[in-house]
Amino acid sequence: MKLVCMKDLLNHAAQTVQKAISSKNTMPILSGIYLSANSDENKLELQATDYEMGISCTIDADVEIPGQIVLSGRYFQELVKRLPGEMVEISSSQEDHTIKIVAGLSQFNLLSLPAEEFPVLQPMTQASAASRSINWITVKDNVLKELIRKTTFACAAEESRPIFTGALLETTTQDIRMIATNTHRLAMKKYFCQENQEIAEASDQNQLSPACQIIIPSKVLNELARLLTSELPVDVNICWEKSKVSFSFENVYFEARLIEGQYPDYNRVIPHEFTTTSTINTSQFLDAVERVSLMAKDGEYNVIKFQFQPDEIVITSNNPDIGKAYESIPVSINGNELTIAFNAKYVIDILKNIGSTELEFSLNTPLSPASIKPVQDENYTYVITPVRTS
Amino acid sequence: MKLVCMKDLLNHAAQTVQKAISSKNTMPILSGIYLSANSDENKLELQATDYEMGISCTIDADVEIPGQIVLSGRYFQELVKRLPGEMVEISSSQEDHTIKIVAGLSQFNLLSLPAEEFPVLQPMTQASAASRSINWITVKDNVLKELIRKTTFACAAEESRPIFTGALLETTTQDIRMIATNTHRLAMKKYFCQENQEIAEASDQNQLSPACQIIIPSKVLNELARLLTSELPVDVNICWEKSKVSFSFENVYFEARLIEGQYPDYNRVIPHEFTTTSTINTSQFLDAVERVSLMAKDGEYNVIKFQFQPDEIVITSNNPDIGKAYESIPVSINGNELTIAFNAKYVIDILKNIGSTELEFSLNTPLSPASIKPVQDENYTYVITPVRTS
Repeated sequence: MKLVCMKDLLNHAAQTVQKAISSKNTMPILSGIYLSANSDENKLELQATDYEMGISCTIDADVEIPGQIVLSGRYFQELVKRLPGEMVEISSSQEDHTIKIVAGLSQFNLLSLPAEEFPVLQPMTQASAASRSINWITVKDNVLKELIRKTTFACAAEESRPIFTGALLETTTQDIRMIATNTHRLAMKKYFCQENQEIAEASDQNQLSPACQIIIPSKVLNELARLLTSELPVDVNICWEKSKVSFSFENVYFEARLIEGQYPDYNRVIPHEFTTTSTINTSQFLDAVERVSLMAKDGEYNVIKFQFQPDEIVITSNNPDIGKAYESIPVSINGNELTIAFNAKYVIDILKNIGSTELEFSLNTPLSPASIKPVQDENYTYVITPVRTS
Repeated sequence: MKLVCMKDLLNHAAQTVQKAISSKNTMPILSGIYLSANSDENKLELQATDYEMGISCTIDADVEIPGQIVLSGRYFQELVKRLPGEMVEISSSQEDHTIKIVAGLSQFNLLSLPAEEFPVLQPMTQASAASRSINWITVKDNVLKELIRKTTFACAAEESRPIFTGALLETTTQDIRMIATNTHRLAMKKYFCQENQEIAEASDQNQLSPACQIIIPSKVLNELARLLTSELPVDVNICWEKSKVSFSFENVYFEARLIEGQYPDYNRVIPHEFTTTSTINTSQFLDAVERVSLMAKDGEYNVIKFQFQPDEIVITSNNPDIGKAYESIPVSINGNELTIAFNAKYVIDILKNIGSTELEFSLNTPLSPASIKPVQDENYTYVITPVRTS
């Protein structure tokens, strides 16, 4: 292998794939970055995978001799980040199994790993959909990013019930939506397909394929969101089969294992009618809840009380070891008065992610799920289960 | 106690003293912040101490009823940071041992700790110098900060020889200086007293007192440097006696225990004549050394080789498990050719802290200490001991 490429492109590609480098020591080859140089197309492809998640990024390169090599991911990306000048030359030597990297007056010989051992990704793309039982949709990157950002924080952190460590990506005839829950709270974000151009489009060939309904690990979604950084909206092609999903956009191919199993019927837990509702300024509410939660910290529990009264919401906490907190938010309440307790963290999470200056807090009884959503926005819903207090 | 004060002042004071709150659980009272309200002067003083370091900060307050209280440092400072509005009211209730903190529509009752158990600081100041065997000097805050920032990184991290975990603050008839070493490298920064206004001034009464020669823990110095944030230079009054030092500036009093013992004669290890010298661009040199050191990482050792040749410095490393690095820096060398090896970390540390675009690297033999200092600056010196290689 022998090629010359731009340092900034190489650095971008190395930073893109490095999230998939395995940090476990069980299979040394997975700690590497795979480089494949193609002289016909003058392209260099970088790949990394830990079997849970695989990322590939392809850049332009002036390829004199094609070939495949694997380098230590950690050292390669740290080195490329620091190289001087604009161009980098990479060449392999058959003699001593080292790869020479030259930039300006800098020269490095990195030991290579056996390329034939690397589990090269088998891309599952729109083009391969016809011949395999692969489904696909296309969605704009900003839509996908928003679906992820508005929901994955609600996933379960513990692995005890794997299904809840992932978020459900679902398409219906009208919308694309993502749902996440840890069974105590649930977040759902939708985009309608007819509403605007930034939508999920079922392809013509694919109209008869089943609707998308896949559970993607939240860790994978958060890494994906970090890679969706284009300034102008770009298409993301999402392909899936039974146990695998892939996202293709620009020069990046990203694939991950799905969580298998049946996601519960989330529609049953979303209440639609309420006896108490209130419209509240988000930042004022967040500040008050954060202050009250300070006094409520007690191990895993962080229970604070909300009293919905005709002209105010009173928020209180009481920890015998720390002290008491009392906050009043003057707002008008429609419907019944109500006293209800929540885990403060679950309230704070949605207030930090809601992205609207005003919210609608809707409730029924002290023991039934409540809803928090942006004012006049039916496409984002957060359901939170109250805590029973004495 | 009952008072009203500005929230921003209270927050600033709480953030200032919180660095001295004890994180150990052995004495609960040391986890508190002591508040003392004085109605004659309309001042509120906050204090915290862990016996190694004590900080006090005094602010204006409208004091109706004077008094002393101690509150949980952690909760108090987190709460004050988040309070709404501009003013805060603090009042104590004898009945239930709680302290009421009111701001806008927020009201908190924090449990108090027994104020009589708090080890109130006994300030050692210029004013108290006459009656006790206390010495003092005055120095500008920016000078003190620079002395700290340019030297403490060279202190030892391990506690095996406590004296080297501190830096020596010393005055001579001409200058004030700080010295730090871990026995493998040494940093010394000086300010001359005649040179400018930003100097150490021995007071008139104090001219016959012994020169300052105290060893201050680097941890303490780094906390102090973080508090020296004034935009315009201010005076720092430094007082010391056998085992204690204090720094008074603006509304802050900061005291700490000294490290007792005899600091070694650092002058003996600073070479003054060299057979090889070179002037090098700092950032170019730093980049090259950092890249080469990537390939040298091997546990605690991080040895890289420098070849001083007539027209270049060649920097190399070789780790059989990772690879080889080669960098060339084209510069002219005065004197003998030389090959010498250093711990890369010790070279990188000075290059990051030197603060000049060009540096002077001066050497004698492969086994004798070398010097790195800013070009045409005799007031900052760094001495580094080479590593013997096969």
